[in-house]
Amino acid sequence: MNDKTTEGGKPRVVIIGCGFGGLEAVRGLSKAAVEITVVDRTNHHLFQPLLYQVATAGLSAPAVSSPIRHTLRTEMSRGNLTILQALVTGIDVNARQVLLDGGQTLPYDHLIVAAGATHSYFGHDDWAAFAPGLKTLDDAFKIRSRVIGAFERAERCTEPAERQPWMTFVVIGAGPTGVEMAGTMTEIAQHTLPQEFRRIDSTATKVVLMEGSDRVLGAFVPSLSEKAREQLVRLGVDVRTGCKVTGIDADGVTYETADASGAQTHRLQSKTVIWAAGVAGSPLGRMLAAATGATADRAGRIVVEPDLSLVGHPEICVIGDLASAKSFEVGKPATASEGKPVPGVSPGAKQMGRAAAANLLRRLRGEPTQPFHYADYGNLATVGRKAAVVDLTVPIFGAIRFSGLFAWLFWLFAHVYFLIGFRNRLTVMIDWGWAYWTYERSARVVAEPPDVGAGAGAAGR
Amino acid sequence: MNDKTTEGGKPRVVIIGCGFGGLEAVRGLSKAAVEITVVDRTNHHLFQPLLYQVATAGLSAPAVSSPIRHTLRTEMSRGNLTILQALVTGIDVNARQVLLDGGQTLPYDHLIVAAGATHSYFGHDDWAAFAPGLKTLDDAFKIRSRVIGAFERAERCTEPAERQPWMTFVVIGAGPTGVEMAGTMTEIAQHTLPQEFRRIDSTATKVVLMEGSDRVLGAFVPSLSEKAREQLVRLGVDVRTGCKVTGIDADGVTYETADASGAQTHRLQSKTVIWAAGVAGSPLGRMLAAATGATADRAGRIVVEPDLSLVGHPEICVIGDLASAKSFEVGKPATASEGKPVPGVSPGAKQMGRAAAANLLRRLRGEPTQPFHYADYGNLATVGRKAAVVDLTVPIFGAIRFSGLFAWLFWLFAHVYFLIGFRNRLTVMIDWGWAYWTYERSARVVAEPPDVGAGAGAAGR
Repeated sequence: MNDKTTEGGKPRVVIIGCGFGGLEAVRGLSKAAVEITVVDRTNHHLFQPLLYQVATAGLSAPAVSSPIRHTLRTEMSRGNLTILQALVTGIDVNARQVLLDGGQTLPYDHLIVAAGATHSYFGHDDWAAFAPGLKTLDDAFKIRSRVIGAFERAERCTEPAERQPWMTFVVIGAGPTGVEMAGTMTEIAQHTLPQEFRRIDSTATKVVLMEGSDRVLGAFVPSLSEKAREQLVRLGVDVRTGCKVTGIDADGVTYETADASGAQTHRLQSKTVIWAAGVAGSPLGRMLAAATGATADRAGRIVVEPDLSLVGHPEICVIGDLASAKSFEVGKPATASEGKPVPGVSPGAKQMGRAAAANLLRRLRGEPTQPFHYADYGNLATVGRKAAVVDLTVPIFGAIRFSGLFAWLFWLFAHVYFLIGFRNRLTVMIDWGWAYWTYERSARVVAEPPDVGAGAGAAGR
Repeated sequence: MNDKTTEGGKPRVVIIGCGFGGLEAVRGLSKAAVEITVVDRTNHHLFQPLLYQVATAGLSAPAVSSPIRHTLRTEMSRGNLTILQALVTGIDVNARQVLLDGGQTLPYDHLIVAAGATHSYFGHDDWAAFAPGLKTLDDAFKIRSRVIGAFERAERCTEPAERQPWMTFVVIGAGPTGVEMAGTMTEIAQHTLPQEFRRIDSTATKVVLMEGSDRVLGAFVPSLSEKAREQLVRLGVDVRTGCKVTGIDADGVTYETADASGAQTHRLQSKTVIWAAGVAGSPLGRMLAAATGATADRAGRIVVEPDLSLVGHPEICVIGDLASAKSFEVGKPATASEGKPVPGVSPGAKQMGRAAAANLLRRLRGEPTQPFHYADYGNLATVGRKAAVVDLTVPIFGAIRFSGLFAWLFWLFAHVYFLIGFRNRLTVMIDWGWAYWTYERSARVVAEPPDVGAGAGAAGR
């Protein structure tokens, strides 16, 4: 497999994963005298912050994703980059090679692991079948199919009692994804679908946002959490905090609440449950931890050294959502402070990608590596139409916090700006402009009919 | 199930399928005092003439399809239309009811069957796994995944001999779909992908268009078939007519040719074969034929009466691709001529939908039905960039035939014009404009990785 990767005897760098972190690492190394190979299991870079729009039928898949080969065409033209769509099945840290499906191997001198995260059901993997999570385009299609399909099923019901579970949607986890999903689903029920059904009244849809802690958007300051909750309630979302989910099955969710009189168990009938609660590092992380002796935290993220490398393996860096990394002050040795945890957001992954590339180049020049510093510009989350919260960190000035329409406009332009590729930005803007004026959602199309029983398989087109 | 369909004692009309025929039938009946129920197994109306663009990554799925509920929102507002997403499992012509998955039944007084067609492998159903056909959005995604994935697999090969079958594409059947697919795949290989791979030269891709008869686009006059062949060859397609396919498997196609010295058997190694050869009526057709005594032709299409009804069952009409219908002269009784076969194209389906609705209204008024007349405005097919053939039938004037750039522009505007919904037209025009100038294809995204062996299932994101 290394017929070309050793060309000219240049150091071989293998990058696993082409999300925000992997992409920046490639860009940071592209002009150097290294031979780069990027491996990803899909053919596209995904703009994950807008994936919920694909799941809620607001945008098409190509609008939020771009073929890796196209995104990296400038870097490709420099002649030292190979892109492979393959599944990584293991890493042999002693022989310094990455194992691919089909038995191929990729030898490396330096390895950057940016394999990202997946859903975690906190040990209840049987919940996955009833409550899909949202990480990939395929996940988004599955959720779109369930949400759109639930209204179709409700329209077919003849008994109101039968109908209610199809018209009840539960989103578990009130982080940014959960808040976005709940807000958008309410908008669909209240504004997009009325007039389109004969038997059901889509405005009677119930969207429940369920959270274990006592507030939504726990990563924000309490005042913005409160603003977000107010905006959600105004949009029609039933926000329930302090709920501990104890069971999910095909017919709904069982959960517990606690008050002065003790714990109570509740049951909510729903045919459509979406999981936005837990995130875990890619299984590759645990493999790597076992092989190198690195520590994996409870969420399966690998604890990295201040320079993002693995202890005892300076040739391996772990970045992005798979890394449990800390931020250190610029220009000071890592020992001068304890370091602050880096949040699992896309700016963090991008900055780690750049830092890993820069440290790799320092090592090639024989210089010492530098501890990672995370430049925190703040945090923003959208709640729904004209509703968002923004918490900006401005150097010297401090924190600027705002919510509502202006926060929503800020969120909108920030996301369109960071979308990769001019063309995507243009079509996203057209889709959003259209959706704003008409309340119509442009991607309300489900490719295949849901599994509607043991039918004859081909009728009614 | 008929809680609302009998409302007010109005005649109940059930329409199976919401393609071009079913949609026009709904529109033709919407203002009448009838109670309409449309059943479709998907949630969208599909603009099938542009489906090949989804398969070849030029357009996203939402650009060529529209939710049925949205398309029919004006008709829905009149209060006599119910839309159900369901699978039709049978028709009980004696009890006059349609059977749905889940055991529900839909009673009818009048039935319009517009269930369309599917692929036919001429008795070789085992070929389906190796040579997908193109009828639904799901089919289009499967083909997109195979075509894009083949280049990825080729890039991973270390031996040139191993690479060639991944870089050889075979399209079987040189009707409009086959010609469009072959032309577009050549464009991708020659113009979109070069510079994006390190190990393979995408311009060395071989696209073979294989046809059993002696010319491409057999529905056109021979001179336009010849023009289309010339244009295909100019684009780089390897056109092989007079080839009888005798076998398809995971590694390629076996076919026979015949010359003066007899039949010869050939073998073409290819990992990507696309089936555009045979079409068969929906299985619902044969069910209906068995139940009513109607005749099904070799392709499974139901032979209908001059007024599109079934013999002995004036309350049932079959229209669109499922009907074997004839066209009769306007204003004359059907017995005055033999009738000309109606081609299986979208204008035919639309006109049948309108005619079936008009005849149904005549029956309600106690008037005799009228034989179907197909207004033939001609035929057009695109071959690739700046390449198409057009055969217009202009009243009095006669036939106008042209090919090349002007035919391509004519094809382009005709298709954008007939695309349903203003928004789709706009985004399709933007996508095409962009693709024309940049050769980039906007939807080169495959949601899930192909089945690349027994990998660990989650790595490299």
